[in-house]
Amino acid sequence: MTAHLGPNRYGKSGIRLATVDRVGDRHRFTDLEVSIRLEGDFEAAHLAGDNSAVLPTDTMRGTCYALAREGIDTVAAFARKIAGRLLEACPAASSAWIEVTSFPWEHVRVDGVDHPHTFRPAAGGIAVVAVTCRRDGQAIVTGGVRGLRLLKTTGSAFSGYLTDRYTTLPETRDRIMATTVEATWGLDDPSDVEVAALAAAVPDTFAARFATHDDSESVQHTLHAMGTAVLDAHADVTWIHFRLPNEHHVPADLSAYGLDNPNRVFVATDRPFGVIEATVVRDGAGSGP
Amino acid sequence: MTAHLGPNRYGKSGIRLATVDRVGDRHRFTDLEVSIRLEGDFEAAHLAGDNSAVLPTDTMRGTCYALAREGIDTVAAFARKIAGRLLEACPAASSAWIEVTSFPWEHVRVDGVDHPHTFRPAAGGIAVVAVTCRRDGQAIVTGGVRGLRLLKTTGSAFSGYLTDRYTTLPETRDRIMATTVEATWGLDDPSDVEVAALAAAVPDTFAARFATHDDSESVQHTLHAMGTAVLDAHADVTWIHFRLPNEHHVPADLSAYGLDNPNRVFVATDRPFGVIEATVVRDGAGSGP
Amino acid sequence: MTAHLGPNRYGKSGIRLATVDRVGDRHRFTDLEVSIRLEGDFEAAHLAGDNSAVLPTDTMRGTCYALAREGIDTVAAFARKIAGRLLEACPAASSAWIEVTSFPWEHVRVDGVDHPHTFRPAAGGIAVVAVTCRRDGQAIVTGGVRGLRLLKTTGSAFSGYLTDRYTTLPETRDRIMATTVEATWGLDDPSDVEVAALAAAVPDTFAARFATHDDSESVQHTLHAMGTAVLDAHADVTWIHFRLPNEHHVPADLSAYGLDNPNRVFVATDRPFGVIEATVVRDGAGSGP
Amino acid sequence: MTAHLGPNRYGKSGIRLATVDRVGDRHRFTDLEVSIRLEGDFEAAHLAGDNSAVLPTDTMRGTCYALAREGIDTVAAFARKIAGRLLEACPAASSAWIEVTSFPWEHVRVDGVDHPHTFRPAAGGIAVVAVTCRRDGQAIVTGGVRGLRLLKTTGSAFSGYLTDRYTTLPETRDRIMATTVEATWGLDDPSDVEVAALAAAVPDTFAARFATHDDSESVQHTLHAMGTAVLDAHADVTWIHFRLPNEHHVPADLSAYGLDNPNRVFVATDRPFGVIEATVVRDGAGSGP
Repeated sequence: MTAHLGPNRYGKSGIRLATVDRVGDRHRFTDLEVSIRLEGDFEAAHLAGDNSAVLPTDTMRGTCYALAREGIDTVAAFARKIAGRLLEACPAASSAWIEVTSFPWEHVRVDGVDHPHTFRPAAGGIAVVAVTCRRDGQAIVTGGVRGLRLLKTTGSAFSGYLTDRYTTLPETRDRIMATTVEATWGLDDPSDVEVAALAAAVPDTFAARFATHDDSESVQHTLHAMGTAVLDAHADVTWIHFRLPNEHHVPADLSAYGLDNPNRVFVATDRPFGVIEATVVRDGAGSGP
Repeated sequence: MTAHLGPNRYGKSGIRLATVDRVGDRHRFTDLEVSIRLEGDFEAAHLAGDNSAVLPTDTMRGTCYALAREGIDTVAAFARKIAGRLLEACPAASSAWIEVTSFPWEHVRVDGVDHPHTFRPAAGGIAVVAVTCRRDGQAIVTGGVRGLRLLKTTGSAFSGYLTDRYTTLPETRDRIMATTVEATWGLDDPSDVEVAALAAAVPDTFAARFATHDDSESVQHTLHAMGTAVLDAHADVTWIHFRLPNEHHVPADLSAYGLDNPNRVFVATDRPFGVIEATVVRDGAGSGP
Repeated sequence: MTAHLGPNRYGKSGIRLATVDRVGDRHRFTDLEVSIRLEGDFEAAHLAGDNSAVLPTDTMRGTCYALAREGIDTVAAFARKIAGRLLEACPAASSAWIEVTSFPWEHVRVDGVDHPHTFRPAAGGIAVVAVTCRRDGQAIVTGGVRGLRLLKTTGSAFSGYLTDRYTTLPETRDRIMATTVEATWGLDDPSDVEVAALAAAVPDTFAARFATHDDSESVQHTLHAMGTAVLDAHADVTWIHFRLPNEHHVPADLSAYGLDNPNRVFVATDRPFGVIEATVVRDGAGSGP
Repeated sequence: MTAHLGPNRYGKSGIRLATVDRVGDRHRFTDLEVSIRLEGDFEAAHLAGDNSAVLPTDTMRGTCYALAREGIDTVAAFARKIAGRLLEACPAASSAWIEVTSFPWEHVRVDGVDHPHTFRPAAGGIAVVAVTCRRDGQAIVTGGVRGLRLLKTTGSAFSGYLTDRYTTLPETRDRIMATTVEATWGLDDPSDVEVAALAAAVPDTFAARFATHDDSESVQHTLHAMGTAVLDAHADVTWIHFRLPNEHHVPADLSAYGLDNPNRVFVATDRPFGVIEATVVRDGAGSGP
């Protein structure tokens, strides 16, 4: 048997890193999780156990903490700095992928005023920025969000679908639609400050469209409306990919108790769940992720 | 060998139930998880396999959905209604414990205005109300909150502690203090409306005290300050129990890289973690849970 | 308002600790998680921020690793050693509770033979031993197991139960019964070696009884059979407490497709789930946990 | 702004399905979770809210249960059957991807003998088979395993690596190596029975190689040894991809207590963790997944 090494990469995940910036009395708390992968020529490590080209993943961890000491202006700039340093430290690497997840915190309010140095997790999703830097200087930056739950109690229908012998689902013109948005978007060479601004603005845009899309015929239909709203509002976004679980809320069947249920009482189910995945792409911008 | 049946109870957990109320255009979305336990004389079921006194846990589930059809004004009233019905339906039961967890949602804001029927999870913890109703008519009601994270970036010290041969922790007069509050409080015969009001007000009170307790010498010290603040502010609360994990944020050791770290860069660790548990009790009110 | 400090304790959880013993070529791998709580007179820490009586939880962590260096013969002996040391190091403590969870590993088999130093997680549950040592020398030891799943495909019924207007569950004389056992048992002054032997033997006993109890009328009925089997087989066990979720497997309703389903195809559901909790107590041995 | 719909697919996840086969007294219990995705021409649903080409995901669920009634010989055959039916029911679909996860159970042993109808989860990982069927009749089948933990207490080194200013990791010639294998392998047109046989045989092969690879210089080195062992032993496997987290076990630093630690006591850490990903490909077989 003869074989060869196919695609491969390695790195560190779960690097938990927080920083405190003191701007007068008001503190800024930054809470990140960094993941790193290097790609390149690491064949000798795999085939011969020769580690001379391998930068340890523990060094990747140390690099993150050391570079954080210089301050973190934006996560995209921080990610680029890590990538640049790792490409410098590890000549065998042809590219470095750095993903930074930002856990959102907000100031606790006391007597109606933000407390300067006390925080609680903010509502909404978790921002993810990923930077891929190649040795030739090219960089790809994507934004994203995870865990952003949205739910509407009306303005959603599902009817007129294909049926077959195994279809039992009743049609409905009024249902609860709920999802936990996982979205990733491509960016056309933006500045690091723009990446940061879009991290907040893109979710605001699609959440608003989710809310106002009251003639929704399906999750697919709303996904597309959310995607086009984002492309309309943000010229730097070239494509956006959504993964939307359909978190079913089924009207409770109360007929056995002699009760009606005009969309008042629902059973929230965990499994199974629908999954709708699609990318909406600005014309002329390639096909997405 | 002879043996006997000791303490026992049974019921249903994980009953996920949501309701939608339409007040004009503005909807109210209520998202609950109910747990139920009955205690009483169920010896024949255990010893002889005689189920004639056993109300199936599936009936408990059905009872929740059926009673929800009448509308849910407050979770405490809903819990009492379920308990009352189950004691009626199951003569062998001497008491019923109903715990209702409320997942908080808030209206999504579009163009600065609450959208009337679109929601996202709200920041803050998850409210828990537990009602224990006995057949003799007595009822015990407790409020509580789970998963309420708080963090302060200064105003917390830990020094002057006992040391021994296995102590290596450095003293500090300035550290990050972070926790995820789990709190339960006793109530002195409140109305259901007061229970609901305290579900929001008690966490606000102790979160504010967490923020302002800037001479904190330990988690214990702040726990006690939070507890007395709650008893001071809310006359209906007779005791409050806290379980506070100490979610350590350790200053990153950058000395190997020739860098200082004046409380700027931190490593957030998951395990191990400290745990501080205590009850603060209003004088004359017994000793708590 | 006047208030006082009620029951309180503190300590460390999630202390992950592994040891390797080399007995000739064959290694022994021990994988533990330790939790610790101290009770005693810690009022000054809570009320006045005076830490002089407080042994840091970080010292508890260090104590575990230092004492592990002497080797771990049995987890009960190790727990007693930690407790003794902490009571010595912390004069304010009146008692120390040490819980040790053991993650089970088994040797990987290569060509039908145990490999001497390669392991994989073993099937079955996770053993838990808890030791509470008081300053007066008294000690309470309990054994336990968590996460032990058992399922039988026949030999289980549920019928003849109480019905009311909210009962829709059909009776059945043949169903799947599945649970994840959480059990804790009291021990009558056993040696540490006996504690270890019972950690394996008690689950074997009740798992076998679960299997052979083919006239099961309910989870309660089987719980009691399992408890009495344990007390019969193990004279050192004075009581045993079970918490048994009823992990429902519902026959799929295929009638809409014109198909029958004679207990062949099942839907495994997560929520809601029944919960049965009871203690079986040896006569003359008190009432359990 | 003009945009278009990019790649898209939809389906159902989390379909939990169990079957019981009665072969004489001895039962067979099959416990599956099915995920489904359809790809094809669903543009009208996204752009116009026209569902006429959309087979509801609830119908996919029903199809699984209905087809399971015919019995499940092998999961690959079951997956093909589901795919075939969905392509028939949904003309707009050009391909169907069916992933079946098998939760492994084994008979409980009573008095040294397998009990015929009582089960517990088996040790080892969880098998995953994925089938992608196109309308033109082509099918791609992959096998895989998730959650297979392996650990060796010696026979693993990490030294001779690249260092830079942020490297602090000490070299070692003897360490614990632990991982939780996630593996996927390509198959060269195998029968469904062969797919099933390889689901068990491939993990056995690489676990044995993990054990015997005692000159391991790194996770990469062992990964490659495991991959070539699989390709050597199983002619139907064309490539195998591994994702191996490096689950660090760090020798506890006991020097502050005046104690040495000759690889006896370890701290198991959760985060951060290394990740090594690579594919080993049979020559002439393409480049993998």
